[in-house]
Amino acid sequence: MQANEALEAATQSQFMVNNLWLLIAAALVFIMHLGFATLEAGFVQRKNVLNILFKNSMIISIGILTYCLCGFNLMYPGFAEDSSGFFAFAGLGLSHTTEGYSAADGTYTYWTDFIFQAMFAATCATIVSGAVAERIKLVPFLLFATIFVAISYPITGSWKWGGGWLDAYGFYDFAGSTLVHSVGGWAALAGIILLGPRVGKYTAKGLRAIPGHSMPLATVGVFLLFFGWFGFNGGSVLSADPELVSLVFVTTSLAAAAGALGAFFTSYIMFRSYDLSMVLNGILGGLVGITAGADVMSPTDAIIIGLIAGTIIPMSVSFFDRLKLDDPVGATSVHLVCGIWGTLAVGIFGDCAEGVGSFGAQLVGVLAIGAFTFLFAFIVFSIIKATVGIRVDEEEEARGLDVGEHGMSAYS
Amino acid sequence: MQANEALEAATQSQFMVNNLWLLIAAALVFIMHLGFATLEAGFVQRKNVLNILFKNSMIISIGILTYCLCGFNLMYPGFAEDSSGFFAFAGLGLSHTTEGYSAADGTYTYWTDFIFQAMFAATCATIVSGAVAERIKLVPFLLFATIFVAISYPITGSWKWGGGWLDAYGFYDFAGSTLVHSVGGWAALAGIILLGPRVGKYTAKGLRAIPGHSMPLATVGVFLLFFGWFGFNGGSVLSADPELVSLVFVTTSLAAAAGALGAFFTSYIMFRSYDLSMVLNGILGGLVGITAGADVMSPTDAIIIGLIAGTIIPMSVSFFDRLKLDDPVGATSVHLVCGIWGTLAVGIFGDCAEGVGSFGAQLVGVLAIGAFTFLFAFIVFSIIKATVGIRVDEEEEARGLDVGEHGMSAYS
Amino acid sequence: MQANEALEAATQSQFMVNNLWLLIAAALVFIMHLGFATLEAGFVQRKNVLNILFKNSMIISIGILTYCLCGFNLMYPGFAEDSSGFFAFAGLGLSHTTEGYSAADGTYTYWTDFIFQAMFAATCATIVSGAVAERIKLVPFLLFATIFVAISYPITGSWKWGGGWLDAYGFYDFAGSTLVHSVGGWAALAGIILLGPRVGKYTAKGLRAIPGHSMPLATVGVFLLFFGWFGFNGGSVLSADPELVSLVFVTTSLAAAAGALGAFFTSYIMFRSYDLSMVLNGILGGLVGITAGADVMSPTDAIIIGLIAGTIIPMSVSFFDRLKLDDPVGATSVHLVCGIWGTLAVGIFGDCAEGVGSFGAQLVGVLAIGAFTFLFAFIVFSIIKATVGIRVDEEEEARGLDVGEHGMSAYS
Repeated sequence: MQANEALEAATQSQFMVNNLWLLIAAALVFIMHLGFATLEAGFVQRKNVLNILFKNSMIISIGILTYCLCGFNLMYPGFAEDSSGFFAFAGLGLSHTTEGYSAADGTYTYWTDFIFQAMFAATCATIVSGAVAERIKLVPFLLFATIFVAISYPITGSWKWGGGWLDAYGFYDFAGSTLVHSVGGWAALAGIILLGPRVGKYTAKGLRAIPGHSMPLATVGVFLLFFGWFGFNGGSVLSADPELVSLVFVTTSLAAAAGALGAFFTSYIMFRSYDLSMVLNGILGGLVGITAGADVMSPTDAIIIGLIAGTIIPMSVSFFDRLKLDDPVGATSVHLVCGIWGTLAVGIFGDCAEGVGSFGAQLVGVLAIGAFTFLFAFIVFSIIKATVGIRVDEEEEARGLDVGEHGMSAYS
Repeated sequence: MQANEALEAATQSQFMVNNLWLLIAAALVFIMHLGFATLEAGFVQRKNVLNILFKNSMIISIGILTYCLCGFNLMYPGFAEDSSGFFAFAGLGLSHTTEGYSAADGTYTYWTDFIFQAMFAATCATIVSGAVAERIKLVPFLLFATIFVAISYPITGSWKWGGGWLDAYGFYDFAGSTLVHSVGGWAALAGIILLGPRVGKYTAKGLRAIPGHSMPLATVGVFLLFFGWFGFNGGSVLSADPELVSLVFVTTSLAAAAGALGAFFTSYIMFRSYDLSMVLNGILGGLVGITAGADVMSPTDAIIIGLIAGTIIPMSVSFFDRLKLDDPVGATSVHLVCGIWGTLAVGIFGDCAEGVGSFGAQLVGVLAIGAFTFLFAFIVFSIIKATVGIRVDEEEEARGLDVGEHGMSAYS
Repeated sequence: MQANEALEAATQSQFMVNNLWLLIAAALVFIMHLGFATLEAGFVQRKNVLNILFKNSMIISIGILTYCLCGFNLMYPGFAEDSSGFFAFAGLGLSHTTEGYSAADGTYTYWTDFIFQAMFAATCATIVSGAVAERIKLVPFLLFATIFVAISYPITGSWKWGGGWLDAYGFYDFAGSTLVHSVGGWAALAGIILLGPRVGKYTAKGLRAIPGHSMPLATVGVFLLFFGWFGFNGGSVLSADPELVSLVFVTTSLAAAAGALGAFFTSYIMFRSYDLSMVLNGILGGLVGITAGADVMSPTDAIIIGLIAGTIIPMSVSFFDRLKLDDPVGATSVHLVCGIWGTLAVGIFGDCAEGVGSFGAQLVGVLAIGAFTFLFAFIVFSIIKATVGIRVDEEEEARGLDVGEHGMSAYS
């Protein structure tokens, strides 16, 4: 009798810890949105700062609401059945009930699951905003972000995390090097192809660097992203399992640190300068790189993955510049290229059981999700371009989007 | 025997989780003070930035000490008896003892309770500082803040959270739409009435907008406030109860997101511009609005409450401007107006048991606490005005308070 | 049988909470690095901002990797034996294994221990970077930081936290007033002695104040440090023990608040001005001061310790200026002087059992660690000075290190 009570209390206690950790992780992922906002604001020119802040403030808001309305349901179709239409139609009409609260396995509640996933969903749209900054029209971009979070991200997400075909195929993506980061990166790539470079970036005399207006803001952004990544990766354990969560903290930190070093040395070798923006993006590259396998890597593997990711950054930035693909914040290098690298790294270093995470499976996942996402984003951006247009006119671009789109300045 | 031991261990484990969550929540509420500091600094003119940072650095410090000295005791009179004068006279003379540590129900310790509540207390004074910015004298303001946190906030707080008459009356205020936010808002209103508007705000030719000096700082502030609100509302569950805390995270996030959208559309309709300051205050309005009922609302309710709060913001800002009540950061619109809205919303949407949170009870709470707080603040501000004065002279206002009050600049 | 299962589940649950708290605390200590980065960036001149951000981005990265490679092993020699060479040689070659995961007492895993301690280690190097800012060469500084974190910090750390001779002697340092803060401070002192003051700071006409370029950045830094200190001190309990962790939150907050007040009054008396940088450093002084005894002080003691620490700040800053020891951010006053004060305060106010933390033992600890660290840092800095040099030339100092070392500006 008392033993029964004790077991229930202990089980409840574990439920409480697991659930609490996921909620705290959700809050940490939320703060990544401030990281993106400040990073992107720091890396754009002074005349476009208010515009990027506006976009990022709206994206997190649109993202949470959109994911509630349809994304969550689309990505985790099983839940709808389990809980008789739970969250169907955005939870609208959903009355406050304790029914369906607790997940079947007693690890966390549905509400917890929703809010943790919602914070993730909004992330992929934010990745796009940095790459297309300084020349995209405000409302068309918000339209794209809404459609992207509502449909594209949940569909490819469902293939793996929703228990779909890629999951069955043995594709492994712990916290989203592919499902979140490269997905954002592919959409960013589609956007910058259709938008074209900023005026004056690629001139007849060659590349003209357009430095960001505030390195303190950019640095704040990267540190906040690093901080939030403890929730992004650590929360993806989906419990407070002491061994796994602590391993994930270690691999995440080591990869980020190694990413800084990789970018430090590579950018010095390539450009003979100590380039802060490269080091900052190297940290992010290391974080994106470890994300796919943060729970299955040894510390040594994590360091190697991070070092390579950091090394990739300056090379990738140069590569995109050579292709005249203009990305003011380096989002494609960080999220797309390092996202692919991290996903494939699981096939190289990973120690997943029974064929899960084999190089072949990883490659199929990268290609399938990449193809779908790029096409989806390309088509949606194209439709918007053909109808309302996506790029501000040259005069507005020269004056800056703060005055052009908002009639205000970020500083006064 | 062993069953007994197991039950004790399980009970202790639950105590540990509950207590830990409240401590983490306290840290999150603490970071809201940085949110207020940066928000207010961003929304004031460059010449008054150091002054507002100074005020906010002092308020959190004064707030914690004052609440320790008398506020906590005054607000939760029961504790004094339970613990033989615990914390009476600021804990001075209190020796380090494990006695009285554990709260009766084993959910959290007295220390935890104190620090969580202390972080709340300091909040209400910070709300005032933004509204009265750019023209109030430094030391008189700090004097007001001290008296306000020491006496006014704990008295009205005790009416509900201390188990006083409003609690008995059926008034419901989960995390403080009224007890914290509108209380700060009423004091802010008293302050701006007595201070008068900034020179040049309301001219013969009409309203002259005085834009804030840094939108990045203001945006950082709002995101940090959103982040901290997970502790403010989530911690107000007063345990790590998985269902309630996760529901609170969801309603809080949805209301904030809906607040952004409400303000986005309303400000566009009213002013035909995409106004970042409105969207930012819309997020805050949504957060303040959901705070009174975050634990009793469905997601749909939360979205509606947030949407309305966001819609209120631009209308309220215009309304106060028409009354020539000058509030540089919009604190009265956010904390007072949306605080009232959120409290009344419990009476409209809430599903509280047995008459608790009825519209009538909510209205009585809003009016009683509003009347007391406004009068208290008005009288204290008036006494300070009549004696040492509250407003800097015109020359100092023109030069800026940074040089005037501190002999320094925020930037150099 | 079931009782057995229940006890195991309850024990596991406690393990989960304890471990989770340490991981969250590690994340909070991580964010202190952003605090240091923004504080130092705010307190330096505009022309040296990118340089300080670069240093701080590298230090956290180098710190984590270095501590993994050898620092952790050196500081906690017992672990190496327990776990058959665990983390020896930077965890290189360490395969992913669950072996050796769980600490013997079931409170937290080795990974958790490593990452929590690694975040601490990097802190002490960051303290140095502020003091030597605006005139030290980049790469020589990074070299020093690497050697310092790899060797000096772990050796003195092992004397107490690694179970060495100072631990046996009865020296008490809860979270590192001496082991972390004064250690960073002593190295900073060695650095500024060997570097000399910035050009133009001490002139024939007396002291010339060189104000920081952004007080908002500095304020953000101090609030983030305060926030992170909940993890620094709270995590040092090494469990989620409700009584101890909550007491530590209370003493930490009260000391910080009292530090602000102490600095407010003392700096007003000394300089007749309301000096924000003094109040900010007063908060930090209070935090450093309480760190050695945060778990053994009563609230009243904490207030007294913080008040005295805050009072020390303006006096110490003046004192170092009189000695022409130029410290742009006041790191020696905050971390060295208040670190010593806090450590000795344990001998005055502390209530440690059986002679532990006696004034004599505290003094011996301060002197022994101070002597070792200062000498180590002085010798290493001297060797670097004699070989590659440590100070930029006068022309570069005048132009600023951003252009000189990086060929870029922090703002554009």
